Amino acid sequence: METFEELGRRLSNWGRWGPDDRRGTLNHLTPERVLAARESIRSGRVFELSLPLGKGGPQQGGGRFNPIHTMTMLPGDWDLPDGSFIVDDQVTMPLQCATQWDGLGHVGYADRLYNDVPAAATVTARRGAIHNGIEAMAPGMVGRGVLLDVARLRGVDWIAADDDRIGPDELDRAARAQGVEVRPGDAVLVRTGWRRKAVVEGSTPEWITVSPGLDLACAEWLHGHDVATVASDNWAVEAMPSPVPGSMLPLHCVLIRDLGMMLGEMFDLEALAEDCAADGRWDVFLSAPPLRVTGGVGSPAAPVAIK
Amino acid sequence: METFEELGRRLSNWGRWGPDDRRGTLNHLTPERVLAARESIRSGRVFELSLPLGKGGPQQGGGRFNPIHTMTMLPGDWDLPDGSFIVDDQVTMPLQCATQWDGLGHVGYADRLYNDVPAAATVTARRGAIHNGIEAMAPGMVGRGVLLDVARLRGVDWIAADDDRIGPDELDRAARAQGVEVRPGDAVLVRTGWRRKAVVEGSTPEWITVSPGLDLACAEWLHGHDVATVASDNWAVEAMPSPVPGSMLPLHCVLIRDLGMMLGEMFDLEALAEDCAADGRWDVFLSAPPLRVTGGVGSPAAPVAIK
Amino acid sequence: METFEELGRRLSNWGRWGPDDRRGTLNHLTPERVLAARESIRSGRVFELSLPLGKGGPQQGGGRFNPIHTMTMLPGDWDLPDGSFIVDDQVTMPLQCATQWDGLGHVGYADRLYNDVPAAATVTARRGAIHNGIEAMAPGMVGRGVLLDVARLRGVDWIAADDDRIGPDELDRAARAQGVEVRPGDAVLVRTGWRRKAVVEGSTPEWITVSPGLDLACAEWLHGHDVATVASDNWAVEAMPSPVPGSMLPLHCVLIRDLGMMLGEMFDLEALAEDCAADGRWDVFLSAPPLRVTGGVGSPAAPVAIK
Amino acid sequence: METFEELGRRLSNWGRWGPDDRRGTLNHLTPERVLAARESIRSGRVFELSLPLGKGGPQQGGGRFNPIHTMTMLPGDWDLPDGSFIVDDQVTMPLQCATQWDGLGHVGYADRLYNDVPAAATVTARRGAIHNGIEAMAPGMVGRGVLLDVARLRGVDWIAADDDRIGPDELDRAARAQGVEVRPGDAVLVRTGWRRKAVVEGSTPEWITVSPGLDLACAEWLHGHDVATVASDNWAVEAMPSPVPGSMLPLHCVLIRDLGMMLGEMFDLEALAEDCAADGRWDVFLSAPPLRVTGGVGSPAAPVAIK
Repeated sequence: METFEELGRRLSNWGRWGPDDRRGTLNHLTPERVLAARESIRSGRVFELSLPLGKGGPQQGGGRFNPIHTMTMLPGDWDLPDGSFIVDDQVTMPLQCATQWDGLGHVGYADRLYNDVPAAATVTARRGAIHNGIEAMAPGMVGRGVLLDVARLRGVDWIAADDDRIGPDELDRAARAQGVEVRPGDAVLVRTGWRRKAVVEGSTPEWITVSPGLDLACAEWLHGHDVATVASDNWAVEAMPSPVPGSMLPLHCVLIRDLGMMLGEMFDLEALAEDCAADGRWDVFLSAPPLRVTGGVGSPAAPVAIK
Repeated sequence: METFEELGRRLSNWGRWGPDDRRGTLNHLTPERVLAARESIRSGRVFELSLPLGKGGPQQGGGRFNPIHTMTMLPGDWDLPDGSFIVDDQVTMPLQCATQWDGLGHVGYADRLYNDVPAAATVTARRGAIHNGIEAMAPGMVGRGVLLDVARLRGVDWIAADDDRIGPDELDRAARAQGVEVRPGDAVLVRTGWRRKAVVEGSTPEWITVSPGLDLACAEWLHGHDVATVASDNWAVEAMPSPVPGSMLPLHCVLIRDLGMMLGEMFDLEALAEDCAADGRWDVFLSAPPLRVTGGVGSPAAPVAIK
Repeated sequence: METFEELGRRLSNWGRWGPDDRRGTLNHLTPERVLAARESIRSGRVFELSLPLGKGGPQQGGGRFNPIHTMTMLPGDWDLPDGSFIVDDQVTMPLQCATQWDGLGHVGYADRLYNDVPAAATVTARRGAIHNGIEAMAPGMVGRGVLLDVARLRGVDWIAADDDRIGPDELDRAARAQGVEVRPGDAVLVRTGWRRKAVVEGSTPEWITVSPGLDLACAEWLHGHDVATVASDNWAVEAMPSPVPGSMLPLHCVLIRDLGMMLGEMFDLEALAEDCAADGRWDVFLSAPPLRVTGGVGSPAAPVAIK
Repeated sequence: METFEELGRRLSNWGRWGPDDRRGTLNHLTPERVLAARESIRSGRVFELSLPLGKGGPQQGGGRFNPIHTMTMLPGDWDLPDGSFIVDDQVTMPLQCATQWDGLGHVGYADRLYNDVPAAATVTARRGAIHNGIEAMAPGMVGRGVLLDVARLRGVDWIAADDDRIGPDELDRAARAQGVEVRPGDAVLVRTGWRRKAVVEGSTPEWITVSPGLDLACAEWLHGHDVATVASDNWAVEAMPSPVPGSMLPLHCVLIRDLGMMLGEMFDLEALAEDCAADGRWDVFLSAPPLRVTGGVGSPAAPVAIK
């Protein structure tokens, strides 16, 4: 069987958009395709796809934590002569604690990041990701998005973490069942229902530890469709734990490092999926820029889908 | 002369969208208007309007600070059997340190926030802004934006902080000169050139201390046009210091508290303005959601303008 | 039965050291008493009484969190010509997340802090505790400490949270059994064994939620002995939950607000207690200054006991 | 002339206290010497040697910043039935932003830390300083301290940054003039008056950029006297910028890496120096433990000197 490294080599986009490219598959997102994506706006309804950033977030244990939001000025703190007041606040948060993008500095292997960038030498405590910082991806994914509702296809509220992983065939079946086509430059939004599980059960250590998700074989499917990016309603896009012995994030490795593809994680697709099921339209205009954190390897996001 | 309180009372939107409304002038942004905004997408070119979030940011002194970005995992830190590595990072930042939205909890007077919400009792260290948190504004401004380039109208690189303030007439003249119409539900993007000053001179204490900007009288103009929001390329939208004796932020007071209007600050309008001048098209599809910080009174943003 | 408010009024030290006093019972700690405390140094052995500040700390849930320690510069980040390197780090932490002092701004009632200071008006988001900040306590407790090992007296590894609370009589019995005298200006270190529980069982949500500890009646005992402060090996000194209906921290209220006494929490008394049991000497020279956090209501500490 | 590497090799303590030693010259601090240090307590007067931790601190630019202290709970936030309230706070700060200890993980060269520990492999973003963390130094410096007031010896308020560096002879002359002896296990506290400069002039970028201080040759003097540690009232102990071409912190390199000596920085010696000058007693009992930050390379401290 092909290893993820072999698959990565076969699908590699290194050099495809020049030796200094830092945007990877976002290059598929040409102005023509953004313009065409306009056609997905049919009613003007806007769906917010992000989770709240607060104490009740998904980080229940593990290496990350939920945002720590504190108020630095409150009404009464600064007595202005006219009776007005100013309120201010700050936050300490992991850049990937809730709805977020994995930038191209987030995952790699064999000491290389996307486009043959040495990892250890260019990602440092002092400067962050010098060459593959998330700021290089701005404005990020702004164009056509297609929701593939695999949980719906399977007829379940959510796919369990130990259910079959989602493979390329199933993505095709979902698209066919929904009557939607995946086009070059698209963002593929995969719904596993994992977010619904959190809505029903609350944030639990389990939720953030295991997950249903894509199989490694989906890398070729995503590559073949020339999509700009993929996002999901779970925290890792791919199934966790990984089925590949000795590997933790093989799909991340191939998508981020070899294809140069940002991954969107913990997108809330619930309301959108219901709406799409109701009107039978599964394509949207998706605007989901990352914050321009200099040297960041990820970024919180507030994606919006416009139908 | 009318005080800002009198003006605020005259223009007040309190109760206009019900006693529990938390979205204020975003209510102007109906699906029909979002749909109509689609027409502003003509070429598919996307402009990122945010400043970088990093050490070199605009906070050079004062009560806020630039983002503190640290790496929490680097290549080599976690030896996975397959040679892959994971990089992670976090940030500590004021929610209003760079390109950002003022939420409806940010400014008020006479112990009241928008829609008659008591301020001291509902904005607390423990919970933030309980009723007027920025998360209530999601998905925020997603619709038509109109750029009014006042610096260009005046024929200057940037308006100086002690130049004449921008009044309603000048907004009208800019629109007329540009051949663009401001419609209900729009975001008005006012370019003063103040951002260009920072590009030319770098971030200085002066830049973040004083500013050119709108006059208090613009509140009535914004109200009369039923705009959803206003944003600018300076840090306060309004001229700083305030010309109203004893008042620091009179326009904030009226717009945020009385009208229920979010303010966008430190938007980078440079590249967009050049493009608009080149093709004579000054309207855009603007997507600028805030992060959903629970109880937040502001939010960093990465606005994108699509032409 | 006397309420805690009545008890507080009866024992009140307000005004005792002047209307502007901010040091409360630390006033008992005169130079003469510090000098006399020198006699407790008999062997030169030094015991560190603090818990580690790190991810494995006691904050497993609840409103506080364990320290978030990140590296801001690592070897290799800054190539100096001579091959040298500099490493730097930072921390985000609640001031009371591990071994710590409660300052006089930490707890009060009826809108008053120690010495009749209005609470709401003088403890603000912008400035912290303006009048009762922990910095006013520096150098804090530096003098004679007496360890009272109540767990040992009861013959248990640790007192359970629902065991009898520790009352004044038991403090006397412990002192008598150990052959040690509590003197004016002393710090009383009460060992409940609760720290040992964490050593044995690890940090658990239970550990930081309930606790054995002192009864409200101990306030009078501490007052009568003119002690400078009291510290314990649990997280609240007093028994949690409180046995007083409707009250959460009655002993805190009386000690901090009415007596003006700092409380030391989560002191690790294990090694010290063993040593004292071995040599029969239960008095120490205790040096336990708080950090001088301007406006802080608490402070991490690294107390040392010298025998 | 001998390079700092040659000097370091000549003075090296590697292996002196075993191959796994992490405490370096703190090993000189035997219980006997702690016991003897008791004799320095003659009056019971206690001097706090730390700077305040707050917005007005010494970090005016550069890579570090002043503490960011925020309130997380204020009076009124949590309505307890008995009218009591709880106030809580947190801090984000570099571990070396004010009065502090350099741990043995802070500086090295040729990829080695004290006692031949590889640097890059053992100081990581994920875990901090794995082998030479500051927590290994606890309880740190607790014993006899000797103040050498070089500014006083020179008859100046403070030594200027471009004045002659302080050499071993001058340390001897200061000790002789003061009639005090430096003994094995001591902490040497060197007063340059640089702190007084900040008191007089306020915190300035200059203050934290350049500094008077010790010459590299002092390493041999400190080594020869078997001192446990050295601290000073400036921010780097050694003179800054370094006079050694191509080297930034040569004295740090030798002391921290080769001798295994913690350095104390930004100690406030003003009040203590005045008192010592008044009574002619220049030795103190010094208690200055670091916080036990797991994997930390430095630590804030609140040192106290007891006379």
